[in-house]
Amino acid sequence: MPLDLDAYCAANQPRFLAELVELLRIPSISADPAYAADVRRNAGHVAGAARAAGFSVVEIVETEGHPAVYAEAITDPALPTVLVYGHHDVQPVDPLDEWVSPPFEPQVRDGRLYARGAVDDKGQVFMHLKAVEAHMRTRGRLPVNLRLLVEGEEEIGSVHFEQLVETMGERLSADVAVISDTGIFARDVPSLTVGLRGLAGVEVEVRGPSLDLHSGVFGGAVQNPVDALARMLASLRDPVTGRVTVAGFYDDVVEPTEAERAAYRSLPFDESAFRKVAGGIGATVGEEGWSVLERRWVRPTLEINGIWGGYQGPGAKTIIPAHAGAKISCRLVPNQRPDVIGRLVAEALRAATPPGVTCEVEVRHGGNPVITPADHPAVRAASRAMGSVFGREPVIIREGGSIPPVEVFQRVLGIQSVLVGVGLPDDCIHAPNEKFDLDHYAMGIRILARLWDEVAAEMGDQRRVPSADK
Amino acid sequence: MPLDLDAYCAANQPRFLAELVELLRIPSISADPAYAADVRRNAGHVAGAARAAGFSVVEIVETEGHPAVYAEAITDPALPTVLVYGHHDVQPVDPLDEWVSPPFEPQVRDGRLYARGAVDDKGQVFMHLKAVEAHMRTRGRLPVNLRLLVEGEEEIGSVHFEQLVETMGERLSADVAVISDTGIFARDVPSLTVGLRGLAGVEVEVRGPSLDLHSGVFGGAVQNPVDALARMLASLRDPVTGRVTVAGFYDDVVEPTEAERAAYRSLPFDESAFRKVAGGIGATVGEEGWSVLERRWVRPTLEINGIWGGYQGPGAKTIIPAHAGAKISCRLVPNQRPDVIGRLVAEALRAATPPGVTCEVEVRHGGNPVITPADHPAVRAASRAMGSVFGREPVIIREGGSIPPVEVFQRVLGIQSVLVGVGLPDDCIHAPNEKFDLDHYAMGIRILARLWDEVAAEMGDQRRVPSADK
Repeated sequence: MPLDLDAYCAANQPRFLAELVELLRIPSISADPAYAADVRRNAGHVAGAARAAGFSVVEIVETEGHPAVYAEAITDPALPTVLVYGHHDVQPVDPLDEWVSPPFEPQVRDGRLYARGAVDDKGQVFMHLKAVEAHMRTRGRLPVNLRLLVEGEEEIGSVHFEQLVETMGERLSADVAVISDTGIFARDVPSLTVGLRGLAGVEVEVRGPSLDLHSGVFGGAVQNPVDALARMLASLRDPVTGRVTVAGFYDDVVEPTEAERAAYRSLPFDESAFRKVAGGIGATVGEEGWSVLERRWVRPTLEINGIWGGYQGPGAKTIIPAHAGAKISCRLVPNQRPDVIGRLVAEALRAATPPGVTCEVEVRHGGNPVITPADHPAVRAASRAMGSVFGREPVIIREGGSIPPVEVFQRVLGIQSVLVGVGLPDDCIHAPNEKFDLDHYAMGIRILARLWDEVAAEMGDQRRVPSADK
Repeated sequence: MPLDLDAYCAANQPRFLAELVELLRIPSISADPAYAADVRRNAGHVAGAARAAGFSVVEIVETEGHPAVYAEAITDPALPTVLVYGHHDVQPVDPLDEWVSPPFEPQVRDGRLYARGAVDDKGQVFMHLKAVEAHMRTRGRLPVNLRLLVEGEEEIGSVHFEQLVETMGERLSADVAVISDTGIFARDVPSLTVGLRGLAGVEVEVRGPSLDLHSGVFGGAVQNPVDALARMLASLRDPVTGRVTVAGFYDDVVEPTEAERAAYRSLPFDESAFRKVAGGIGATVGEEGWSVLERRWVRPTLEINGIWGGYQGPGAKTIIPAHAGAKISCRLVPNQRPDVIGRLVAEALRAATPPGVTCEVEVRHGGNPVITPADHPAVRAASRAMGSVFGREPVIIREGGSIPPVEVFQRVLGIQSVLVGVGLPDDCIHAPNEKFDLDHYAMGIRILARLWDEVAAEMGDQRRVPSADK
């Protein structure tokens, strides 16, 4: 047990809090151009904190948008190298009047630190800085090589992130990536996220008459493109089993192991709380034979993200619309590939096109699903670090969405990611009254400090573990 | 045979053309406020022509929009009274550069008069004025009482017409209405339109989560409102038979007689020409067991006029939309009623709503289908008048759309309508190079002149024929 690190963290925790509070005062809202100078000032503040923590190289890295911060602490080329990712920008704060205390005037209430960015992601970036500081001040060096990349545009879709990673190239080379921008499953259920779904998308346009037709004069003898589209979309899913009916859709799906399913079953999933978070829906639905968590984490899905056609204004307009369209996206699981799924969905739509209309399908750029094997040495290391601090072994879970850096790191750098975050489901990220539990902030620092010891132990002998497919 | 009328018309036809040309020079475009003064000047010109024709009372009738013209020639209260409807406003002229000659500089080419409004409807209104003139100049009086109402807002949806009819009330009382604002089936196939479809409409809104959800985090476990709506809409029609599957939808439908169907079969319907007119569609579709004409004239239909939901902008947005909606309208045939059909469609949509979303349906104001029995004395009269001029008995047909005055006359005044128009399918109404064949203009005047003799003969003894339901 790293008593030295724990003791250092315990002794300095009040200062760790005070320093985070200073960072949280900067309104680094990336979405609003009015705050561009604040985002830049915030990057400078993070860079200063990185220098203070003991990183030997610290730089503000310009992009075509907001700047990022890069820092490195290369101990010894023979040691394993970790790339840590976080972001220093924050979400907008509307509706402002729902905040109990102002979003950029951090306040502690009941052991929680309330401020925009408290947990997403300034607080978790600061956990990394303080964990490094603990190593530097107690031992004078880190047991691994560490590269830190703190983006300034995560909340606006990481618009220049891939360009940034490509430009930095070799400077980001690492054996594995650690990302602290997520949470754990529940307060008493620590978890590590190792899988994310991929994405495939198509846009379909159904065309009938060359112009809107009078529905009285022509109605009954002309295929209505909206009607055709509705029928085509409805044909993509079996209403009874909830399964996607696109031929070949499930062919490449790797089903989770029975152990993984058993682990998910053991999670304290609260259906009623989920329905509330999901916009107050009255019932969950989905693919027969799979739980709600499995439907979101390990099963692929097909969603209609938007639809349009004909008259949408007030009142009535009695036309047969000339055309109609829809945007469709699929969430993918290993080993589905976006180009294959896009093509299959396009083929299914074309095959379902009735007489009297034509159908054009554009297959969009997508992203691969990613999964870091549960027996990856970095996962084992993170599991031990987290387990020792929480007093309970973390569950290995997946997420239903995509986290762009994970996909970029895999595709551009060829490295896999482990998501080590300590946020809680009730942290109100992206909403008023965002908070970070102070005990989680403290535990997070200790977890990350221990993590580098564990990574050194697990990966010291086998550096350059097999890369993910580029 | 009314040789006196025919001779008068033949002798004066060059002047009839010259007078129509003068009216066509006035750009009475009701849709464009810049032409409001022209519409008013045009009303004055029509009123002057009505006085010249021999109407004893002629008035410009103000509305909240463009003025109408009212004229009457009451010969004898004991005679049958006919209400004639037409309109003096015209469609816009765009695209102007496609006109061979300017739209308001009438030009005769190859026996056709080219100008905006030539056949729709200034030319056909003028047929009525000249037919009255023929009676007045040859016999000094009409054989019927005639009320003429020439609207100035038909091309903008007759927005104040119902109000106008209600305000004029008893001054419009008549035994039957004659409307000359349509055409015949084909050049060699004279026809009388006696039936129009009605209209019922609903708007449906499907609501799921209270806000757009992240399709990665939630996709697979949450009912997608667009998906649900597509499925609900698809459920309203049997894809094999093309029949509407709404329970009770066909219950009140009066099927056409075998004689009527035989008459339709005998019509020279050109499927390829129809597909061209219908926006160049590749195939016609529709209810099994019925021809294209029957699907449009005597069968009810259900059309989706518009649909919306989720993201419609450029690129992709990976959401489960919070809600989706659609506008639906049905064309009705006797004896369907709009309130009943609206309710049945609403019930079908509610019954098809899957778990996890809710559905709200608003039933809109609709209109009754109308049909004037083929053995109505005015239909017999019109058939004889038209048959004697064309040398061929007209076919009794229906139209798929609604003509608002017909429905207003039936509902407000309790009178039925016969549509006596002599336009041709290739007249390009509402398009560049609108024209009126000069021989049809001349035949139309003779038909209408004869019509009043025939109406007097048919309806003189049985005036106040049974009114339609109010």
